[in-house]
Amino acid sequence: MTHAQDALTDKNIGLDDLEDLAQGAAFLGTGGGGDPYVGMLLARHAIQEFGMPEIIEPEDLNDDDTVFTSAMLGAPTVLVEKAASGDDIDLSINKLAQFIGKKPVAISPIEIGGMNSMIPIVAAARLGLPLVNSDGMGRAFPEIQMVTYNVYGVPTTPAVIVDEHLESVIVETSDAKRAEDLIRVCAIQMGLSVMISAYPLTGKQVKDYGVTGTLRIALGIGRALVEGRKRGEPVQAMQEFLRSTQYYNHCIVLFDGKVTDLRRETTRGFSIGHCHIEAIDGSEDKMHIEFQNENLVARVNGKTVAIVPDLISVVDRETGQTITTEGLAYGQRVKVIGTSAAPVMRTPESLAVFGPHAFGIEEEFLRIEQIHNVV
Amino acid sequence: MTHAQDALTDKNIGLDDLEDLAQGAAFLGTGGGGDPYVGMLLARHAIQEFGMPEIIEPEDLNDDDTVFTSAMLGAPTVLVEKAASGDDIDLSINKLAQFIGKKPVAISPIEIGGMNSMIPIVAAARLGLPLVNSDGMGRAFPEIQMVTYNVYGVPTTPAVIVDEHLESVIVETSDAKRAEDLIRVCAIQMGLSVMISAYPLTGKQVKDYGVTGTLRIALGIGRALVEGRKRGEPVQAMQEFLRSTQYYNHCIVLFDGKVTDLRRETTRGFSIGHCHIEAIDGSEDKMHIEFQNENLVARVNGKTVAIVPDLISVVDRETGQTITTEGLAYGQRVKVIGTSAAPVMRTPESLAVFGPHAFGIEEEFLRIEQIHNVV
Repeated sequence: MTHAQDALTDKNIGLDDLEDLAQGAAFLGTGGGGDPYVGMLLARHAIQEFGMPEIIEPEDLNDDDTVFTSAMLGAPTVLVEKAASGDDIDLSINKLAQFIGKKPVAISPIEIGGMNSMIPIVAAARLGLPLVNSDGMGRAFPEIQMVTYNVYGVPTTPAVIVDEHLESVIVETSDAKRAEDLIRVCAIQMGLSVMISAYPLTGKQVKDYGVTGTLRIALGIGRALVEGRKRGEPVQAMQEFLRSTQYYNHCIVLFDGKVTDLRRETTRGFSIGHCHIEAIDGSEDKMHIEFQNENLVARVNGKTVAIVPDLISVVDRETGQTITTEGLAYGQRVKVIGTSAAPVMRTPESLAVFGPHAFGIEEEFLRIEQIHNVV
Repeated sequence: MTHAQDALTDKNIGLDDLEDLAQGAAFLGTGGGGDPYVGMLLARHAIQEFGMPEIIEPEDLNDDDTVFTSAMLGAPTVLVEKAASGDDIDLSINKLAQFIGKKPVAISPIEIGGMNSMIPIVAAARLGLPLVNSDGMGRAFPEIQMVTYNVYGVPTTPAVIVDEHLESVIVETSDAKRAEDLIRVCAIQMGLSVMISAYPLTGKQVKDYGVTGTLRIALGIGRALVEGRKRGEPVQAMQEFLRSTQYYNHCIVLFDGKVTDLRRETTRGFSIGHCHIEAIDGSEDKMHIEFQNENLVARVNGKTVAIVPDLISVVDRETGQTITTEGLAYGQRVKVIGTSAAPVMRTPESLAVFGPHAFGIEEEFLRIEQIHNVV
């Protein structure tokens, strides 16, 4: 068993693992979820002060346990510049608890991404609660309704958002897209970087609809990168590890090239744009990636090679480190990796909520293993 | 004692008084506060179903009583098209009560205007609570922080807004202007016509900072108009009545003319514009009125003749009926009436919050009786 695979059962995850966890989460975050470095600093600070929270598995929860999610919401451009004080995280959780009259017994990530794998660690550490090894996407997504819990009928609200002035807004609506719209305008008004606790969950809902195992898989990815760098093959090491997992087993290098064009703007509260990559092998091949916070579709010479909700990650071709859509820059030498999403993310019900059409992309979802005939 | 003056003590205000009350409130609403007719229909319906609420005086309240305000918030353009179901009003009140853990013993208007004198009647009728003869402006204003309660330190929030789908948002911030900004973006997202309960008050705060007597004065204005029409002098009758009141005693016909130009747009959630009126007496005199939901400043040939927070009301020159800024139309023959605001509205503290500068008007406030040398 490699150190990477050991991550899936390691009983002693702690401060020293944060960087690997953040790196792996950034990969699963497919370009979004905020800067892993900023998130890591927040988590490190919280762990130093309050200790590392216990990581528990969904099956450790009782069906009627109350589990809260904790995340940062905003455009990654802004997340990079602002950071949570901690009081805002506490307030979002405590206000939700007060509002619904139930205290959480555990904290769960709602998405896996650079910042939003770290914020739940901060929340759990500060509140002295365990952290559930699961999330609602197994990746990152730009909008609040794009969560398996919503797909399978868990109400998005009550949702509490809190800004750095400790101003708060509690939203209640039975419509997840309307929740997104309302929370988004508030987040924009509050400066595009707020703490959110939404989707108050039961233990049963976590077990039934969560994408399980993702925190430990993120750590495994990070460890595989470290190990791979030692032998000069970080991307290959990461692929090997992912292929050993249950969901992310189709993991393909889609392109190897250099960033030659980039458009990115913060609009409607999102970081929206596209990126062109030219082949490094001297061929005329070109890749085009569209993103909305996260990478949505990758095409080579016009042909789709991976599409949402499957994961598209842009990594440094030498170090394997994930480059967020905010971190993309002209001239970067990158590999683009496509990875299969969890099965619960690919159901017709899920595709209706966060398949290509939900992002205005007209083509149908095709599984990456279908596209590349590696079934 | 005329029937108009009788309004100030009348023990039997009921269904038959609604139209007069709405007409008078529209006058005090200085062009804003929504369509008095729509508000009246809502109030009539509520009274028919639940009975007329008792009207009480601020001094009837105990200092530690809890009093809630109830209002509709949005651009008058939209308020004209949408109407409250009643469930939304109940929900805004009940959610606030649940949130702060206190039930109101009475409902108070937060402003006096066409719609927002009627909504509190609906709320009080539906909830079986008395209605306080007082408000937080003695007129209407476009923004939530423009309230005497805010001027004198009563927190604006927690504020609850509810839309026609019974979606709700609870805002908490210690800054009234930020509350306005947050509530406004939510209201825009919710379709620009929401029910709001903000400024939860104590009986002492109502007594100390409210503009008292305004509901009954509105009724008196309406009755004076009816009486005045019988003798062909509605505007004069209204002026006579207002001159008999404590606050509104300076009441001057500023202009008599015909609407010849009008610009009005719904922007940032407000109805903003201006109106030109040419003199009807054959002179070259022209009046120019600027408004943001409510009329803000009136100038004749460039010279200011009345300015916010004093009241500027445009009325039909024959019937004396108030024309809201939404109802203004080319060719209307109108009288423009300026009325002194309540003393609490003219303090330096109040002027800092809703004097001319708060609306981007550079000149200083001058009391209407100073401008017209009628001190």
